[in-house]
Amino acid sequence: MNKKTENFLGIDVGGTHVKVGLVNTKGEILHFAKEATASLRSHESGFSLAFVEVVGNYLRQFPEVRHVGIGLPGLVSKDRTTTLEIPAISELNGFDLKNALLKKYPDIIFHLENDASAAAVGELHFGTGDTPPNYLFITLGTGIGSALIMDGAVFKGVRGNAMEMGHMLSRGNSRLEPLIGRNGILKIAARFLEKFPEESGKLATQELGMHVLVSAASEGNPIALKTFAEVGEILGEAIVSTIRILDVNEIYFGGGISAALSYIMPSMDKTVHQYLSPYYLSDIKMQRATLENDAGTLGAAALCFMD
Amino acid sequence: MNKKTENFLGIDVGGTHVKVGLVNTKGEILHFAKEATASLRSHESGFSLAFVEVVGNYLRQFPEVRHVGIGLPGLVSKDRTTTLEIPAISELNGFDLKNALLKKYPDIIFHLENDASAAAVGELHFGTGDTPPNYLFITLGTGIGSALIMDGAVFKGVRGNAMEMGHMLSRGNSRLEPLIGRNGILKIAARFLEKFPEESGKLATQELGMHVLVSAASEGNPIALKTFAEVGEILGEAIVSTIRILDVNEIYFGGGISAALSYIMPSMDKTVHQYLSPYYLSDIKMQRATLENDAGTLGAAALCFMD
Repeated sequence: MNKKTENFLGIDVGGTHVKVGLVNTKGEILHFAKEATASLRSHESGFSLAFVEVVGNYLRQFPEVRHVGIGLPGLVSKDRTTTLEIPAISELNGFDLKNALLKKYPDIIFHLENDASAAAVGELHFGTGDTPPNYLFITLGTGIGSALIMDGAVFKGVRGNAMEMGHMLSRGNSRLEPLIGRNGILKIAARFLEKFPEESGKLATQELGMHVLVSAASEGNPIALKTFAEVGEILGEAIVSTIRILDVNEIYFGGGISAALSYIMPSMDKTVHQYLSPYYLSDIKMQRATLENDAGTLGAAALCFMD
Repeated sequence: MNKKTENFLGIDVGGTHVKVGLVNTKGEILHFAKEATASLRSHESGFSLAFVEVVGNYLRQFPEVRHVGIGLPGLVSKDRTTTLEIPAISELNGFDLKNALLKKYPDIIFHLENDASAAAVGELHFGTGDTPPNYLFITLGTGIGSALIMDGAVFKGVRGNAMEMGHMLSRGNSRLEPLIGRNGILKIAARFLEKFPEESGKLATQELGMHVLVSAASEGNPIALKTFAEVGEILGEAIVSTIRILDVNEIYFGGGISAALSYIMPSMDKTVHQYLSPYYLSDIKMQRATLENDAGTLGAAALCFMD
């Protein structure tokens, strides 16, 4: 194996698509394809076996590939063989995916990982910045994912599935994800629109969505700015508690909604400074991840660097 | 060195007392003494140097001692040489305690640790139960401390001071410690007494304190039971978030207020089951630590086992 010249397959398994990228060691995507998750789920042999077949198709298409990284949206066993709780694709619950793959393709090395951890690993290997060996990674999107890179490796916690920040309890004992995942953010905006209709501006006439909201914020729309300010407070509170548990002081934000980070940051930064002591604040850094749209595929491919 | 037969010094540094125990490898305290922290703080050369002198007194008294463990109420450097933020004894902030000790007593091996982590290590080495190699340890007392033992070692997090659960944000963005540390619990009880005076029973005529409250709970006093039920909910919420971050499923509770654990447990257990998914709940265990009053001294001494 020569990781300097070989190409990897990065497979990002999601509730909507299974994305497959052929990625070189510089993090360039040489080929990209996606399959509809629903069509794999409706396959007569079930998602799990259909997925194993799909992997085979790409291995035949790219016979030079020796390593395959797979990012999965849920809990995996500590030895990274078995998918345990995958809410979006429950057929995978309790499936020994790694061994099913190895049985069919014994010459390939498979690296399974939670998708947020894969994205964090992607930033580590393919990020365009000077990525440090220790950081908290938070993905802001439909859901809220998180990971901790510690000493250059994924922190797995005691039983294998640490870092589920999206399920921390937040305001009113709601979990963080329904509060400030995509739908939660739109709910906050709807609440402000109802409360301050005179400030709605162009949001009064457009269907509410993330792109509209980010665009409105960039134009100074007060409802959009209030919305992201509240997101920043709520996210900041969860970060305070997470820092108290992990004592980490660099944070990267990925995921589609990190596009709004500059509007989220002021209140998040204020919240963090309000509740943490000087020890934690001296070198704290919060910044946007450098990998954007391809973070899922690149992250999955980057898993091939982790032995 | 022969850790099977030697005796250790365990020093538990607190805001009120510095407690010093001579402890054998079975966890028996052969000699115990304490010094008033205030009198060391008023020493002409300041607490830090006065403390170094005190250590010397005991080393002269027990010349066979080769290892000294010291539990400290605050943040210490990751290499466990320097006390960084010690709120109760601010003279220690930024003091290179280990090297000050080594300069005076170069033949002694000193083990410095946060006091909650020391208590967790005490349970590991001297607990009377079958202590597992991975657990969350929570001390309930004047303050709320916590530690994670992972693979038989103290989890330090990225920068050295993980596991400050007492400073996680809880209801109304209050930190956990003021909410359910000793004073917080008494405030909850006072609130219930005001709200339900007809249920106060013997609490109407006694000065409110932890002993009185625990005793009242044991007699079925509804105010006391309501108080501990609320403590259990609040603590349970923090545990849910902590489990989501660390994926740990065994929890020990130490500290004076763990005497009330049987009254705290029902609502805490209910809260944990309400907010965690089956993966986390299958083998969850929450129990009282087996070391009681001497946990601080024994924990400090147990640090001498950690190399």
